[in-house]
Amino acid sequence: VPLKEKPLIQNIRRTAALRGSKIKTGIGDDCAVLRLPAGQEALVTTDFSLENVHFRREWHPPDSVGHRCHARGLSDIAAMGGVPQAAFLSLGLPGDLPQKWVDEFVAGLLKLANRYSVPLAGGDTAQSPDGILADIVVLGSVPAGKAILRSGARPGEFLYVTGSLGSAVATLDQLRDGKKLRPRSHPKHFYPEPRRAVGQYLREKKLATSMIDISDGLSTDLDHICEESKTGAVVYVEALPVAGGGASLRDALHGGDEYELLFTARPGRQVPKIIAGVPVTRIGEILPGSKVRLATADGKTQILKAGGWEHFG
Amino acid sequence: VPLKEKPLIQNIRRTAALRGSKIKTGIGDDCAVLRLPAGQEALVTTDFSLENVHFRREWHPPDSVGHRCHARGLSDIAAMGGVPQAAFLSLGLPGDLPQKWVDEFVAGLLKLANRYSVPLAGGDTAQSPDGILADIVVLGSVPAGKAILRSGARPGEFLYVTGSLGSAVATLDQLRDGKKLRPRSHPKHFYPEPRRAVGQYLREKKLATSMIDISDGLSTDLDHICEESKTGAVVYVEALPVAGGGASLRDALHGGDEYELLFTARPGRQVPKIIAGVPVTRIGEILPGSKVRLATADGKTQILKAGGWEHFG
Repeated sequence: VPLKEKPLIQNIRRTAALRGSKIKTGIGDDCAVLRLPAGQEALVTTDFSLENVHFRREWHPPDSVGHRCHARGLSDIAAMGGVPQAAFLSLGLPGDLPQKWVDEFVAGLLKLANRYSVPLAGGDTAQSPDGILADIVVLGSVPAGKAILRSGARPGEFLYVTGSLGSAVATLDQLRDGKKLRPRSHPKHFYPEPRRAVGQYLREKKLATSMIDISDGLSTDLDHICEESKTGAVVYVEALPVAGGGASLRDALHGGDEYELLFTARPGRQVPKIIAGVPVTRIGEILPGSKVRLATADGKTQILKAGGWEHFG
Repeated sequence: VPLKEKPLIQNIRRTAALRGSKIKTGIGDDCAVLRLPAGQEALVTTDFSLENVHFRREWHPPDSVGHRCHARGLSDIAAMGGVPQAAFLSLGLPGDLPQKWVDEFVAGLLKLANRYSVPLAGGDTAQSPDGILADIVVLGSVPAGKAILRSGARPGEFLYVTGSLGSAVATLDQLRDGKKLRPRSHPKHFYPEPRRAVGQYLREKKLATSMIDISDGLSTDLDHICEESKTGAVVYVEALPVAGGGASLRDALHGGDEYELLFTARPGRQVPKIIAGVPVTRIGEILPGSKVRLATADGKTQILKAGGWEHFG
């Protein structure tokens, strides 16, 4: 840790109270030392949040950038049915970045972390040659052998999605059009909620056979499930929970940064229509083969090409 | 993972063979799933390697950048007396970066990973708006309660360092002066060796009471030990193992990126002069108070100020 970053680090260290006994040594040693619950496997995910790729300073207030940064990692843990245990933040900051920006970024990140009882246990800082660079690491845990993988889908199973789709990218389009938005009025984009409770419920009830979070867009993430499970799939256009507020079918099919969960369940299992307060919608079916199709109400189908969500870099 | 990065990822996935049973699911799911040995605590460390801050493309061949990137994380695990279990790489790449550069970077990183039996189990990729960005995460393990912390030093204990000091920064100075160097002839800078075997030995033999790796320079890292242990210290100038090849006392005292281990041991304990083939030198003593001093052979002392190593950003 370069000396000039010390005030920043000390600030994080003060704010990120170590809670419970799972963290034995946090910020301020070569490594964090953690105790995972007995009989559990470790889950690890890392996610970049890069300025002008994943966020823009002129569009996103710093607390939203911090919130979204952590949400990316927490959502990955949720998509395995896991419990987040600790977070680690690598932060590269331009020399001329105001301390106020950093403080609000950290506040946004820690607010979400505290709500999910995920202490910030370590990380790294560096001076960035250009733009703000954040990399969030979340360590989670799941009972041994119980992680919900992408590869567990089988033909005949049904396909489900949490919440509604399309509003995150619809908000992004408004920002691109130069609209001034109140962040708190567009929470799906600025303050997305990782679906931890849903993920844990699906794992505890053994309902989901495969699962992924929709970070790259429904079409791309469904493709990931089909690729890893070696299956095809069909999505019913009419069933898609397209969000209100100007989201189009296209937004719902291809928009990224949704943080909803896409999962499969056996046809015999009753999947609740609402889990932990979040609507759950059956949107399709897993098929043999390798093609992903879109079916309209009149019975016609077309190939659903992966949209290839690429943020806005 | 953006689609355009897929070939890169597939390449890593092919190359980073999953070895042993500790990794249950690696690259290609929302999280990696790992099984830690029973009775062990988890160690986590994250380290940035940023272009023009930690390396320069015109100075460092890509395999050296990959090696150094992973060495940063492995060295932190060594400094806790831990065993590295898996690595995770977040990689931000400029759009115009040749695939050859990426392949050689990954090859350098994986060569070190394979030598230390540390599989690459996941990570993230993104397009970088400017410059190459790498963040390495290493997950390690240590028997519960046995991690060697920075905070364990007590007055009266002796201070030791592995290897020799100063050549990494001496090489850097030559690069700054525009000298063309053969990387293989300057391994301490281009291909540093994390002191894993020494770290594990010191933990298994219960020799070290505190430990840190010298990444910020001896003066700064000794300061970290003293700060966390709430002690002072004295370093004997005459005892310092200053490296050959043009390294000065100043280089040895303040040069960073050394990847040597600095540790303390009780006066009654016999610390071998060579551990796992690496020389170990007694260089000072832990004292009451909070000041770090430098003592010359004639008995004079002066305050040793932390040098504040800041790479070359």
